[in-house]
Amino acid sequence: MPRLILVRHGQSQWNLENRFTGWWDVGLTPKGEEEARAAGRLLAEKGMLPSMAFTSFQTRAIKTLHLALEEADLLWIPETKDWRLNERHYGGLTGLDKAETAAKHGDEQVKIWRRSFDTPPPPLAAGSEFDLAKDPRYAGVEVPATESLKDTIARVLPYYESSIAPHLKAGATVLVSAHGNSLRALVKHLSGISDEEITGLEIPTGQPIVYELDEDLNAQERYYLSEK
Amino acid sequence: MPRLILVRHGQSQWNLENRFTGWWDVGLTPKGEEEARAAGRLLAEKGMLPSMAFTSFQTRAIKTLHLALEEADLLWIPETKDWRLNERHYGGLTGLDKAETAAKHGDEQVKIWRRSFDTPPPPLAAGSEFDLAKDPRYAGVEVPATESLKDTIARVLPYYESSIAPHLKAGATVLVSAHGNSLRALVKHLSGISDEEITGLEIPTGQPIVYELDEDLNAQERYYLSEK
Repeated sequence: MPRLILVRHGQSQWNLENRFTGWWDVGLTPKGEEEARAAGRLLAEKGMLPSMAFTSFQTRAIKTLHLALEEADLLWIPETKDWRLNERHYGGLTGLDKAETAAKHGDEQVKIWRRSFDTPPPPLAAGSEFDLAKDPRYAGVEVPATESLKDTIARVLPYYESSIAPHLKAGATVLVSAHGNSLRALVKHLSGISDEEITGLEIPTGQPIVYELDEDLNAQERYYLSEK
Repeated sequence: MPRLILVRHGQSQWNLENRFTGWWDVGLTPKGEEEARAAGRLLAEKGMLPSMAFTSFQTRAIKTLHLALEEADLLWIPETKDWRLNERHYGGLTGLDKAETAAKHGDEQVKIWRRSFDTPPPPLAAGSEFDLAKDPRYAGVEVPATESLKDTIARVLPYYESSIAPHLKAGATVLVSAHGNSLRALVKHLSGISDEEITGLEIPTGQPIVYELDEDLNAQERYYLSEK
């Protein structure tokens, strides 16, 4: 039966510095690299071996994938990268740390942006140092200026349906290495979580989450691989 | 115009130990990893940025690709792995070091196997510790028991024509991270090198070789990127 394994990237430099990252491309810390390797060792130990992998256009997720696959001796499986698995775009908050954001916008407003399902942060100013509209990586992509979680889901799920689900239906074990919010989109869909609840659901870094699916891709079971 | 960039993987553990490797999967040494990173820095410095990448099913070539792309901030480009870009299969010589091989088969015979265009080494015994016929990585692949350089070319070139050339014709800059003999196949084809000469042509590790091609994929120029 089909299986979907979700892994959130290990600690990034801006996770460590507590800055809003979104689409900005930052690397893993040494701790993040070790989290990725540990995830790969766990896949190997449990015999939970993906036959293909998907990841975002962002270095922290790609590198998490590569380190995990290397540990599991699976670097050779096919991998597909797509911007629609990117992290939620944090708009004008990109690059700010928590203290800067609270000083600029107030604690209450920040809480709303972080926890609201459909209220996006203010847009990133065009030409900002964090503006990726002209990055060659996003050639042909309409780079958003900001995103709510709802907006993020609205690009992740069609990609899941068109590009990942057909492989699952064919019986594949698929690994997705991605981000807190792009993975929330998949968990919300597969576990039927409400709009209100999904914003509070924390997905831990480097912890493979396994969905056992039926042939119609309904979730039969969801578990942390470390607990199996 | 189309461009093809060839990179031979950095030093592997068995390069260092002077053992015949072929399809056996060994990792890079620290020196090999640094060669791969240096290749990536050179791509970035020279602005020679691939838009897509191809590699083999073997860890040393895949990892060379990943380390190079990471240095060039290009981990996000599409990559395709295929067994037809694998190293030549060294048959019954796999795992032997030079001294063992000479003791077993004699210096003259070894020279013939290493330098002949179409004489393969003796086949690898089925069930040998180096037999990959049942490796899940090669499910659906008819794993050879041995290969001459001619045999290697006979699988590399059709793959090049079917899977790489169409992207070049569309104007892509394609990076291929592969092995001494799978790259010889491409160099022989693009530079029109004779059967006799190609066996003696050494492709240095970690040195990007660039082919500038015309729209019919005829080579206009070939150079080491380091010399440009």
